[in-house]
Amino acid sequence: MKINYDKLYDISMLINHDMPVYKGKEEKRPLLKPVSDFASGTVYESKLEMNLHTGTHLDRTLHMIPEGNTIETLDFKELITKCKVLDLTSVKNKITAKDLSSKDIADGDFILLKTRNSYEKVLEGDFIYLEQSGAEYLVNHRIKGVGIDALGIERAQPGHETHLQLMEKGIHILEGLRLKEIEEGEYLLFALPVNIEGAEAAPVRAVLMDFNN
Amino acid sequence: MKINYDKLYDISMLINHDMPVYKGKEEKRPLLKPVSDFASGTVYESKLEMNLHTGTHLDRTLHMIPEGNTIETLDFKELITKCKVLDLTSVKNKITAKDLSSKDIADGDFILLKTRNSYEKVLEGDFIYLEQSGAEYLVNHRIKGVGIDALGIERAQPGHETHLQLMEKGIHILEGLRLKEIEEGEYLLFALPVNIEGAEAAPVRAVLMDFNN
Ligand SMILES: [Zn+2]
Ligand SMILES: [Zn+2]
Repeated sequence: MKINYDKLYDISMLINHDMPVYKGKEEKRPLLKPVSDFASGTVYESKLEMNLHTGTHLDRTLHMIPEGNTIETLDFKELITKCKVLDLTSVKNKITAKDLSSKDIADGDFILLKTRNSYEKVLEGDFIYLEQSGAEYLVNHRIKGVGIDALGIERAQPGHETHLQLMEKGIHILEGLRLKEIEEGEYLLFALPVNIEGAEAAPVRAVLMDFNN
Repeated sequence: MKINYDKLYDISMLINHDMPVYKGKEEKRPLLKPVSDFASGTVYESKLEMNLHTGTHLDRTLHMIPEGNTIETLDFKELITKCKVLDLTSVKNKITAKDLSSKDIADGDFILLKTRNSYEKVLEGDFIYLEQSGAEYLVNHRIKGVGIDALGIERAQPGHETHLQLMEKGIHILEGLRLKEIEEGEYLLFALPVNIEGAEAAPVRAVLMDFNN
């Protein structure tokens, strides 16, 4: 196997205190705190306090379902997979079944939804999300995972219908992707979460590799 | 490019409160705290408080050098690389130049040191580490990175000689690997840190892929 380093893309968010966080809530901002520095000791060492839905991350079903599963029970190999990036940048508000109907989506696909979120400063506000009919469409096409360039795959849906429809079918949910540089097409996705036992989500440094090499 | 899923290995530590931490220090234990659950709300959400040298992680030079570099300036492509796993499980205390001299180490290699640490409960105590002469040997062979199955690449060396020798040459340092299942040989390493701005280290979900497919 040979890596084509010219066709390798980081699709992850940078984590810092001023990054976009869900609904802009102050308590969701990550904090990086030095616990040792060169004034007090001989090494620099810090500690991170972070909500697990910060930046690029994988949700597990415990996020929405009591008795749901957690990060350590994931088979990591399922997050090393072929994927399809769909260009949905013309969608204005939410992704519906209709928006997806013109796309080539097949059984077993891992779908990444590229929207205006990758271009505009909307992550803390009215970001583009996957509406219930869109989730249903993906479920009916038996995809195995879906990723989006928003901090949540839905926005203020009171019953969390999108998450639940996907989770009930065991469809992986990746949030907080950055897809500005990525053209519609097929890639290899590496999206391995930090293996935090008991966690309902975990940070991921996600990358795409060109599929044809 | 085709992934051989039968030859894909997770070489990362599981993160929880009872995992081995550097010198067994209580304040280094990660804490996972729920911030919302199904009693108080409609979602389960948690927050992690974690020293950045917990489990499998990448060190940057700020860890040991004032004005050193941090995670976000890393070219992530350097952590997607061919690597060589060296079997040093016969080493009793520390890895010296002599222990490395029989191994095939070449210019540009990324070396992973497999030791007794992957088998025995020694991570909080007298773990096998890379001694100064071993670090010098690797520097002289112009490697580009080194990983070890210990929480630190050195142990109680007051001047941090091993870290400093490697860091001064820009050699990447990966710590907290789990190599029990891995035979000596060549692999592809994926060891991408979570992209935390300003951090002197960051967690990595590291995997190896078989090189010959
Ligand atoms: Zn989430
Ligand atoms: Zn470290």
